[in-house]
Amino acid sequence: MTLELEDHAFLRELLGDRGVAGPGDDAALLSVRGPLLVTVDPLVEGVHYEPRTSPARIARKLVNRNFSDLAAMGARPDAVVASFVFGPGWGTRRRRAFYRAVDAAVRRFDAAWIGGDIATGPSTVFTLTAFGRAAARPVRRSGLRVGHRLFVTGAIGASLASGHHLDFEPRVALGVRIAQRHGPSAMIDISDGLALDLWRMLDASGGLGARLVAPAIRLRQGRGRERLLEALGAGEDYELLFAVPTGRVDRVRADPELPDAAHEPIGTVEAEPGIRLAWPDGRVESIEARGWVHV
Amino acid sequence: MTLELEDHAFLRELLGDRGVAGPGDDAALLSVRGPLLVTVDPLVEGVHYEPRTSPARIARKLVNRNFSDLAAMGARPDAVVASFVFGPGWGTRRRRAFYRAVDAAVRRFDAAWIGGDIATGPSTVFTLTAFGRAAARPVRRSGLRVGHRLFVTGAIGASLASGHHLDFEPRVALGVRIAQRHGPSAMIDISDGLALDLWRMLDASGGLGARLVAPAIRLRQGRGRERLLEALGAGEDYELLFAVPTGRVDRVRADPELPDAAHEPIGTVEAEPGIRLAWPDGRVESIEARGWVHV
Repeated sequence: MTLELEDHAFLRELLGDRGVAGPGDDAALLSVRGPLLVTVDPLVEGVHYEPRTSPARIARKLVNRNFSDLAAMGARPDAVVASFVFGPGWGTRRRRAFYRAVDAAVRRFDAAWIGGDIATGPSTVFTLTAFGRAAARPVRRSGLRVGHRLFVTGAIGASLASGHHLDFEPRVALGVRIAQRHGPSAMIDISDGLALDLWRMLDASGGLGARLVAPAIRLRQGRGRERLLEALGAGEDYELLFAVPTGRVDRVRADPELPDAAHEPIGTVEAEPGIRLAWPDGRVESIEARGWVHV
Repeated sequence: MTLELEDHAFLRELLGDRGVAGPGDDAALLSVRGPLLVTVDPLVEGVHYEPRTSPARIARKLVNRNFSDLAAMGARPDAVVASFVFGPGWGTRRRRAFYRAVDAAVRRFDAAWIGGDIATGPSTVFTLTAFGRAAARPVRRSGLRVGHRLFVTGAIGASLASGHHLDFEPRVALGVRIAQRHGPSAMIDISDGLALDLWRMLDASGGLGARLVAPAIRLRQGRGRERLLEALGAGEDYELLFAVPTGRVDRVRADPELPDAAHEPIGTVEAEPGIRLAWPDGRVESIEARGWVHV
């Protein structure tokens, strides 16, 4: 509460009268036409970032992680509300640097921070709720059919080691383009590892399976089987995994706006449940997606 | 993540296909027409409730606190998204009892839990984002004018001692009625103490003041000056504090749907900044609202 009073004026100045009701009221007002997409994700200190991380990087990860979820539905961010619980180590300067960085990260996508709540607690948890508008029909996870080809918008793996998990760019423009141009049957952002997120799509689509082509999957760092298996389970890639019917594959390949990685399918949806990894020498190995869960 | 997998099927069964996109997608879809009110509030274990509190009471407080914010804008709850970070002490049974109770608390108001996220962390923080629709024009904090009369929908004080802070009923129907029938110039829910929340309205209305009539303020427990001063600063009352122009006072008094407590004004807005408390013997004392902040 002391915290709230201390920060209230600062936030009011920072946010201005963005929402119709603005940050000073009990609720913020969103003026909406048509369907609105909503996503919420927490950032837990010690779990999603180390306590010594700069406030600017923490803020970017918080915002970009949520915007990546909207991108996966083919939606653009529109507004956010925030709930920040500050634990030890968050003095006034650090809090203000954080607020400014959150605001900047939101504005980069022409979205607005319209309200929220701040409190103190035994440990730090930042929660952001983001609102978006789908340019086309929102893309769900559940539309896979046998024969659909799978694509990824970039390299995967080594996200923690490389700092990618803090500094990634959410694939907002790509998500919208894919939704508008390529009629994807399903799309998801890879936050918990390609294997697990692919399994989620397959599961949501009625319990299908997939065969992945090992050499078609690009790695952020290193090469070889061990690294690929690691990368498939590691997570925090924040690339988009999507599928299209075979008739649309050539258009995806030829789209100059898609990154190179997305010009070659990484695999095919199959009727047999489970995920299989095919190697150039003909070997095929099973991947136990659910066993790979990291904590 | 293990937690998420373990709970995912349970939640899918509990929530069904409520949102158009539902809890299995990266974002939930809200079908909206017209302006949407959004509020977000965290419940921090050890701050907002004691760790031994039953999951059902924690769930009710989480939901009702957010719905009280909507009520203060004259809005009815429509949907919620949740982000739950579970710390130690939250085994499977306790988590499931909590999920069920959150869902039940939301449904009691004909609203729907449409999506969210679950994670683990060093301590427990539950964050709920609630969406509402205003029956009339949303009521803000900033519309007070000199001479407006102040009303409260119930007794205040002793919220922690009495368990009221866990078991209160959010004033949703009353908030809507007040907004529709009585043209309130401002309304707020009393979460941080009548003194501080009144100060917030006065501040948002351009730095006005107020004179409160001591005997008109009802106390939940006890009586006398000490108890009243305590109650004014204590908070977690979750009653609505609202104001109307003098021409509307008689209609408020005569409204049979308003509780008794709301039939007599508790004070008047004045031009002189600050909050004053007037006693029957003619004494008037100043209340330093900002100094009363509890942590």
